[in-house]
Amino acid sequence: MSPAHDHRRRRLGGWGFEGEAFPPSPQLLAWLEDRIGPARHPVSSGPIAAPGLEGRALPETGLEPSADPLDRLAHARGQGLVDVLRLRTGRVTALPDAVLRPTAADDVAAVLGACASAGVRVIPWGGGTSVTGGVNVVAGDGPVVSLDLERMAGVLDLDEVSGLATVGPGTAGPRLEAELATRGFTLGHFPQSWELATVGGWVATRSSGQESLGYGRIEDMVAGLELVAPRDRLWLPAQPASAAGPDLRQLVMGSEGRLGVITEVTLRVRRRPDELGVDAALLPDLDRGLEAARQLTLSGLPLSVLRLSDTAETQVAMAVGLASSRFAGLARRWLRLRGIGPDACLLLMGSAGHPDDVAQALAAARSIVRSHGAVTLGRGPGEHWKRDRFRHPYLRESLLDLGYATDTFETATTWRRAAEVRRRIVTAISSALEAIDERVAVLCHVSHPYRDGTSLYFTFFLRCADDPDATVERWARVKRTANHALVECGATLSHHHGIGQWHAPGYPLEVGAVGRDLVAAAAHRMDPDGILNPHVLLDPTDRLEA
Amino acid sequence: MSPAHDHRRRRLGGWGFEGEAFPPSPQLLAWLEDRIGPARHPVSSGPIAAPGLEGRALPETGLEPSADPLDRLAHARGQGLVDVLRLRTGRVTALPDAVLRPTAADDVAAVLGACASAGVRVIPWGGGTSVTGGVNVVAGDGPVVSLDLERMAGVLDLDEVSGLATVGPGTAGPRLEAELATRGFTLGHFPQSWELATVGGWVATRSSGQESLGYGRIEDMVAGLELVAPRDRLWLPAQPASAAGPDLRQLVMGSEGRLGVITEVTLRVRRRPDELGVDAALLPDLDRGLEAARQLTLSGLPLSVLRLSDTAETQVAMAVGLASSRFAGLARRWLRLRGIGPDACLLLMGSAGHPDDVAQALAAARSIVRSHGAVTLGRGPGEHWKRDRFRHPYLRESLLDLGYATDTFETATTWRRAAEVRRRIVTAISSALEAIDERVAVLCHVSHPYRDGTSLYFTFFLRCADDPDATVERWARVKRTANHALVECGATLSHHHGIGQWHAPGYPLEVGAVGRDLVAAAAHRMDPDGILNPHVLLDPTDRLEA
Repeated sequence: MSPAHDHRRRRLGGWGFEGEAFPPSPQLLAWLEDRIGPARHPVSSGPIAAPGLEGRALPETGLEPSADPLDRLAHARGQGLVDVLRLRTGRVTALPDAVLRPTAADDVAAVLGACASAGVRVIPWGGGTSVTGGVNVVAGDGPVVSLDLERMAGVLDLDEVSGLATVGPGTAGPRLEAELATRGFTLGHFPQSWELATVGGWVATRSSGQESLGYGRIEDMVAGLELVAPRDRLWLPAQPASAAGPDLRQLVMGSEGRLGVITEVTLRVRRRPDELGVDAALLPDLDRGLEAARQLTLSGLPLSVLRLSDTAETQVAMAVGLASSRFAGLARRWLRLRGIGPDACLLLMGSAGHPDDVAQALAAARSIVRSHGAVTLGRGPGEHWKRDRFRHPYLRESLLDLGYATDTFETATTWRRAAEVRRRIVTAISSALEAIDERVAVLCHVSHPYRDGTSLYFTFFLRCADDPDATVERWARVKRTANHALVECGATLSHHHGIGQWHAPGYPLEVGAVGRDLVAAAAHRMDPDGILNPHVLLDPTDRLEA
Repeated sequence: MSPAHDHRRRRLGGWGFEGEAFPPSPQLLAWLEDRIGPARHPVSSGPIAAPGLEGRALPETGLEPSADPLDRLAHARGQGLVDVLRLRTGRVTALPDAVLRPTAADDVAAVLGACASAGVRVIPWGGGTSVTGGVNVVAGDGPVVSLDLERMAGVLDLDEVSGLATVGPGTAGPRLEAELATRGFTLGHFPQSWELATVGGWVATRSSGQESLGYGRIEDMVAGLELVAPRDRLWLPAQPASAAGPDLRQLVMGSEGRLGVITEVTLRVRRRPDELGVDAALLPDLDRGLEAARQLTLSGLPLSVLRLSDTAETQVAMAVGLASSRFAGLARRWLRLRGIGPDACLLLMGSAGHPDDVAQALAAARSIVRSHGAVTLGRGPGEHWKRDRFRHPYLRESLLDLGYATDTFETATTWRRAAEVRRRIVTAISSALEAIDERVAVLCHVSHPYRDGTSLYFTFFLRCADDPDATVERWARVKRTANHALVECGATLSHHHGIGQWHAPGYPLEVGAVGRDLVAAAAHRMDPDGILNPHVLLDPTDRLEA
């Protein structure tokens, strides 16, 4: 079965495809029990039913609307923790009134025109993988349509000389890579959501993939695009660079559906590498790990992956495997002799290309990290990571089955401030539930380094409450604490998940009221009736518990 | 004398500093005479006098205004051909009513507030090197102030760990590099205007330097900035990357003063390289040259310079030197034997770094270009280029003295279309003056390659008319022809000179009326009274002859 024609069924009420799972290791469970206590309240995952919400009247758009309750439910929310909790426990209180599936930009224009005239809201839908409330229908709104772009998918044109692929917005990662592979090309954009998320969603949210060190962020890959809004189309053709005014592509990227629907994207693609080789190393502590990561980034070596886990994440992800081995004691003593103790941090560094070039790049990388006290571990851990890189999101489902809730958020800051920002964020969210006598466990890693700074990716765990709404409330407390701490630190509210509904209250704190107004002015020009995904980005209402 | 404290005097009515010159070679003059005929009407360069325009009343701004007529004249226009023609011939008909020199962002805010209330227009002034009418005062406007940022200059902060330098907008290239050099850093941004142009101007116009292949464009270097507008300030702190909404830095970059005055910029800087080594090669023809340039760009080699001249430019710049040698015939036969004939194209390829790394990179680059039929020429031509790289603009002054007018413009397009776009542009402008029985000579080179395409830089020459206004009219005809041809080709109106006043009529054709409206909406939010540089970018009036 070609990945371009994946016939697995999307799971309703959880991540990914039916039949797939990524159960936690006994070591992770032991660690969780140690850190936040035993789980007491499993969250059932029985059959999902749609609430009996009647679809409201919609204008004629020229497309056949889908009013099927389960289809509507599948388009009601994204993939944030609260979304899954509400789906699992039958607490979804708002559905789109219909799902529309355009096949061309003209369809999109017709839908937006008709909906604008009728005051019907439209939420563009790609893979539905937002973890920031980016596609959620809000209860109490007027009629809402989910505009699912799955039929506007595939590679429409490939200019092999310029390395430019024009693709439909609904193209998900596997189909994109499979179609490019037939001509020997790759985009190289591999976010964790790659199996489900789409090109249009990546562009709308400023996505970044796991190999961003080599291939760049989605912003670096977009050469041109078309945006369809209720009154107009904005067509920005592929150009390698331009000084003709502000770069309006950069205004569309990150607009999260507020300015229009992305109907076509021209992407910079590259020749497919022969392999991705990933080496592992242990650094003595996080400070030395960060310095090694910075030096690797500055080195100019052709690396595409760099991932540094903090001590806690290292213990969970890596030393756990070691601890279970019958050679654990021996290995620990061997590492100790080499300066690697309990504060060790795991570093993965990968290079994509011809095997000889990969070997050469990784040899040079090993030499750099050794000068920072690293012990290198070969390719074993990297092979594990490659195998599981798109499966980790399934872990959340298994943990919910047991009664643990987990979620992630991320930021970016300069190298000079990275250690301090991490410490402040970890400290803040670890104690976010102190008032209710619950603990929060936190892991952190670096996975998108730049010359001037790095992303920081946080994974947190808490125990589910008896009542799902109380679990949501716990989660919302942690999120509020995290968002507040990020703003206090001067670190961005998101490195690659976007603003959505859930980070929108903090958005004016990050870019100023003036910055928010600039985006609002653009939205008003494109969508004067305010029908397009109206609660993301610019609506400051706190909807964490919605 | 440190370049940070350059006490040479700016020339009024021409490029650069007094006492500097770059006279044309006899070979260039012979080529011009052959192509467009002998020059008949030298343009005098006598003493420059300010027209007796009384400064109009201005509001109190807290700053001491300079009303000196020569200071006002020096701030009346940029460095386009028509600007110089008008200055030389005493035909400048509009001056700013005063020059103001703020020393801090608060000064700028006070000036803008007072001017907005009084309806006084403000033109931000950096190095005044615009070649697109980007800083020109328009006759018939109400009172106008030139806001010269020269006192807001220098490196304010350097974060060596993150490689981030915060600098004043009025910092010119030599001062910036000298101050960074004391700490071992470089920005690596070297446009031809580097000796005069400033950081604020680079950012406002999306500038690109001669080493953009290695260091990137100014957009890639800006991590954060502050913009002061009449009502508000927009502060976007340094971040390595963010998914928190659209990138508003990218809206400021290219706004050419319409959105506000850039008062501070945080730039990504790097460790200074030990040397810049530049190798030369001759390719058999332009098609093979373009393919070699594309392959060099895709190779991932650490190159910072790549410059490919078309056959005409090669003849003028390079074979000319060869032709004058007494070994010319021998050399020509030697090259013929190696496949290099009359269509030869000169390629320069440079690498910056440690001498060993430079040698290695250039050896690999030579190997690539040889596979495309190149004959390599060693480092001689590159040393010439390095010596003269910032002196070429002086050539225009010497040619005007003789009666030849020259100007440049540039674009970018995809690799697939590069040869065709060059051919169409050269064809169009070569015959732009056919109606008046004058010829136009054109040279073209590639100097900013990208993975998906390249810049194309055109230099054109025409003969001056008896009457300076008729010369301006000839030049304007060529510019209109070029702008029209660029739009027809779907190539951008500018790769790095910007839109200014002179490309503004074509701007809505490039980004659509919608794109123009988006920028206008942003300008209206920041500057509701429309006082900021009001005739660039968004004013579609044809002012080529103004």
